[in-house]
Amino acid sequence: MIKGLSRAGIGDVGDIEAFAEKAAKHGFEAIDVSGKELREWAERRGLEAAQETLRKHELRIGSIGLPVEWRADEASFREGLVELARDAKAAAAFGCTACCTYILPSTDQNAAHFMALATRRLRTCAELLGAYGISLGLEFVGPHHLRTRWANPFIWTMEETLDWIAAIDRRNVGLLFDAYHWYTTGGTKEAILSLKAEQIVHVHLNDAKPLPVSEVLDNDRLYPGEGVIDLQGFLQSLNVIGYKGVVAQEILSQQSPPDSSDTLISRSAEGFRHVYRAAGLQ
Amino acid sequence: MIKGLSRAGIGDVGDIEAFAEKAAKHGFEAIDVSGKELREWAERRGLEAAQETLRKHELRIGSIGLPVEWRADEASFREGLVELARDAKAAAAFGCTACCTYILPSTDQNAAHFMALATRRLRTCAELLGAYGISLGLEFVGPHHLRTRWANPFIWTMEETLDWIAAIDRRNVGLLFDAYHWYTTGGTKEAILSLKAEQIVHVHLNDAKPLPVSEVLDNDRLYPGEGVIDLQGFLQSLNVIGYKGVVAQEILSQQSPPDSSDTLISRSAEGFRHVYRAAGLQ
Amino acid sequence: MIKGLSRAGIGDVGDIEAFAEKAAKHGFEAIDVSGKELREWAERRGLEAAQETLRKHELRIGSIGLPVEWRADEASFREGLVELARDAKAAAAFGCTACCTYILPSTDQNAAHFMALATRRLRTCAELLGAYGISLGLEFVGPHHLRTRWANPFIWTMEETLDWIAAIDRRNVGLLFDAYHWYTTGGTKEAILSLKAEQIVHVHLNDAKPLPVSEVLDNDRLYPGEGVIDLQGFLQSLNVIGYKGVVAQEILSQQSPPDSSDTLISRSAEGFRHVYRAAGLQ
Amino acid sequence: MIKGLSRAGIGDVGDIEAFAEKAAKHGFEAIDVSGKELREWAERRGLEAAQETLRKHELRIGSIGLPVEWRADEASFREGLVELARDAKAAAAFGCTACCTYILPSTDQNAAHFMALATRRLRTCAELLGAYGISLGLEFVGPHHLRTRWANPFIWTMEETLDWIAAIDRRNVGLLFDAYHWYTTGGTKEAILSLKAEQIVHVHLNDAKPLPVSEVLDNDRLYPGEGVIDLQGFLQSLNVIGYKGVVAQEILSQQSPPDSSDTLISRSAEGFRHVYRAAGLQ
Repeated sequence: MIKGLSRAGIGDVGDIEAFAEKAAKHGFEAIDVSGKELREWAERRGLEAAQETLRKHELRIGSIGLPVEWRADEASFREGLVELARDAKAAAAFGCTACCTYILPSTDQNAAHFMALATRRLRTCAELLGAYGISLGLEFVGPHHLRTRWANPFIWTMEETLDWIAAIDRRNVGLLFDAYHWYTTGGTKEAILSLKAEQIVHVHLNDAKPLPVSEVLDNDRLYPGEGVIDLQGFLQSLNVIGYKGVVAQEILSQQSPPDSSDTLISRSAEGFRHVYRAAGLQ
Repeated sequence: MIKGLSRAGIGDVGDIEAFAEKAAKHGFEAIDVSGKELREWAERRGLEAAQETLRKHELRIGSIGLPVEWRADEASFREGLVELARDAKAAAAFGCTACCTYILPSTDQNAAHFMALATRRLRTCAELLGAYGISLGLEFVGPHHLRTRWANPFIWTMEETLDWIAAIDRRNVGLLFDAYHWYTTGGTKEAILSLKAEQIVHVHLNDAKPLPVSEVLDNDRLYPGEGVIDLQGFLQSLNVIGYKGVVAQEILSQQSPPDSSDTLISRSAEGFRHVYRAAGLQ
Repeated sequence: MIKGLSRAGIGDVGDIEAFAEKAAKHGFEAIDVSGKELREWAERRGLEAAQETLRKHELRIGSIGLPVEWRADEASFREGLVELARDAKAAAAFGCTACCTYILPSTDQNAAHFMALATRRLRTCAELLGAYGISLGLEFVGPHHLRTRWANPFIWTMEETLDWIAAIDRRNVGLLFDAYHWYTTGGTKEAILSLKAEQIVHVHLNDAKPLPVSEVLDNDRLYPGEGVIDLQGFLQSLNVIGYKGVVAQEILSQQSPPDSSDTLISRSAEGFRHVYRAAGLQ
Repeated sequence: MIKGLSRAGIGDVGDIEAFAEKAAKHGFEAIDVSGKELREWAERRGLEAAQETLRKHELRIGSIGLPVEWRADEASFREGLVELARDAKAAAAFGCTACCTYILPSTDQNAAHFMALATRRLRTCAELLGAYGISLGLEFVGPHHLRTRWANPFIWTMEETLDWIAAIDRRNVGLLFDAYHWYTTGGTKEAILSLKAEQIVHVHLNDAKPLPVSEVLDNDRLYPGEGVIDLQGFLQSLNVIGYKGVVAQEILSQQSPPDSSDTLISRSAEGFRHVYRAAGLQ
């Protein structure tokens, strides 16, 4: 499984070139960025020079974010599709095969109606991404406080998300599997072992404070190996089912950590080494 | 628009042959039955003789009911698909092109999750029906008391149902448009005029007691023309958009009416004549 | 049915504003343009001013062309999707609901394999268009000489095209029905009467020389009413099934006609009046 | 990879119970049968007793055949769907997750039109199978003589079949990968290594005579290890991509071999052992 880094949890790492350089320096093999960054980078440096920079660092693009607002009104949704086409084209030029979005576990809209709207909208996104060889990863979001943050419960478990993926009905839709959400939804190793590798588009790695699970906050995450999540079991199970994609750190927190990016990435790298070793990987 | 009759509101009319005969006698042009009745009829009499009986009465089959339990567990759903294939084949042999089901406006399941499951299941039903040239009609259900009958609100308006149909994403899915549900959801003529005829698979005709709309009960319906629904506007609007399909009476009531089927069908026929005339039809 | 004009057969009519003005002057109610023209127009004049120009002329946009190369390699196809998203967004802003492409009746590729590729590609186009409320019209192409122009026969009849539309499997795909192709494939009024209005996305009007049908050339068309096609029957049949969309002139010829655009549009307008009158329309 | 046996190439092995017993006796772990056999078996013995027989023999059902005639007219196609629903239900009860059909490499129909029809029909089959957790495997057929057996070339390569699968557009459609067709289409190990395991629904194992590839006949196959196909490379490559499903022998020949079933199955078992060992498996 490929070690990846997102911008969440590493301070202000600078532009995509600085991000790539620092990630590579500390042994990461992938970075998660936005399609817009990729586009602008290719425009600024030329596509081939940008591609060459990644090659030089032995880095790949782990995933881009979905630039489409699929949770609000129809006009916003349509607006984003032009952006999505441009991002997908750019991402494909960089060999990126994953685009991800997250599912808030509650909504102020009628939950059933919103599910119908979102099913159609995400299908369109998946169809467009599929034309560029890119899969759409849906991230279920587990922290309990978000389940009542808005008026009506939506969905937050792996099983519900798989059922939704079946409703969306495109071949290139799967899970963004986040260790934090696995943990906060009471996920088990058995649940991971019930999956096929191809059902997983992308993986997030992070850790949780030693609090009752129901009190764990979404933006209060720890670095891998510094908390209580069974990341050894998480990674081992992903390995057993044959997942070979990117495992990217994503540490959401209320405040930016005070340390330098270099220090934070170094700490992340150490965390990855620790949990990978514990899982018998590498 | 073709005048049709379902079994709801005409007492015990007997088997399908008796039903056909009485419907025809009173000027109806279509009957709604179950696929199972059609199958058993064809087995009992022979397909050609049964077809000939309909031809003799100048009757068509307006719609069959969906024999699949799509609201419960997966095993029940699968169980029904064999039945659906058999019903669809039989219905197609009789020239029937509509199969309908209704949407309860609340559910004890998580509403969003149930919407995802039901989307996939109804897609499979629609796909199978489509192979036989049959459309699937979804009936939104308006009476207010049913919106809180189960724990979580589902959907009940025309607009939500159209959004759901887009999520189901088969060409042969449309509305079963029921006057009672149009009325109890505050439906307008403008709403009907915003539709295209091909979005409507089937129509139900019935009337409502002069109560506040929010107190109207689902199984307390009146015969067409005997209540307060603007059936003239309803039918006119359907005619304007070019709907040419079946308009079938469906009178749900708590108790079977005491009169004979003949009396009740005669009363229905008079109701149809009245409201069709008021709408300037025929 | 709305009288429309494409640029084919009216000489060099100038930019979109000149085109709009001349079309309106001669009584046309719609013009067919490219999405790119619409985008550039909106950028140049401002969207609202451009919309206002159309409103002033009581004109609508009949259809745009599909800007995607779906017949060649995968890279070309992908390239066009960004353009399509931009065109669709622009077209929707102008209230346009149709985007059309044509089907060459033979191909140098393996016909079955090409059909598989094209099915997937046009599905993606339709999905993207659908998000903007736009339908995709597929034009079957009838002239016999084109059936052997490339190595392998593809499809060219209305029936085959409807079967293809079912394979593409999006709700918003239908026919671009061209009188010339109807004529050169031996089309009948019965064939039109077998359609539902919603199966037709757009209509082309033009006429054919008095040659044996098998010798009629694709780019040798006449103005409506000046040839041998039964345009009266064509229009009457479309009217009977309830088609209410745009009927746009498209006169392909080997050489630009020598007359001025004004003269040619006037001649077209006269042709339309003639055949509409013969069909009992207006 | 699970060793499986079909009825092709083992003489008259008797009913499903005899087949199961003999297959198990010689170390096979799966048998391929028809859904009808499974249904009739369950009816005859009772579902639980039949299931218990398989359990006792440590056998699974590798795949069933698709009972739908998707290559002929629409009436035949529809006829088969009822059978398919019944077969799928029965197969699911036995834990079978694969249903297969083959693609003839030429056709007397217009190839493009037939591709459109077949795309829709196989989509319906896949949808129905998917409701029962069953995947549809499509077998490309390589022998050169069949490419001109009917008037028009259809498709016969792995790549074309994958493109068709994308056109069919259901999540549960993949390849039936047959060693004979891999060989006769010039298949390489690289081609297999380009696949993901989930793209393969089922595998056939058999061998070819030492003739020029273009002269190899479809119904002239040898037992695994007795011919010239690089079955070692075939199996190794499938193993590398993580395929863990059934590899079933299918030996089509012009005449039934004269030996007893027991002798033939023993010979098959020896062939499997030989090529599995050569491939470093087990």
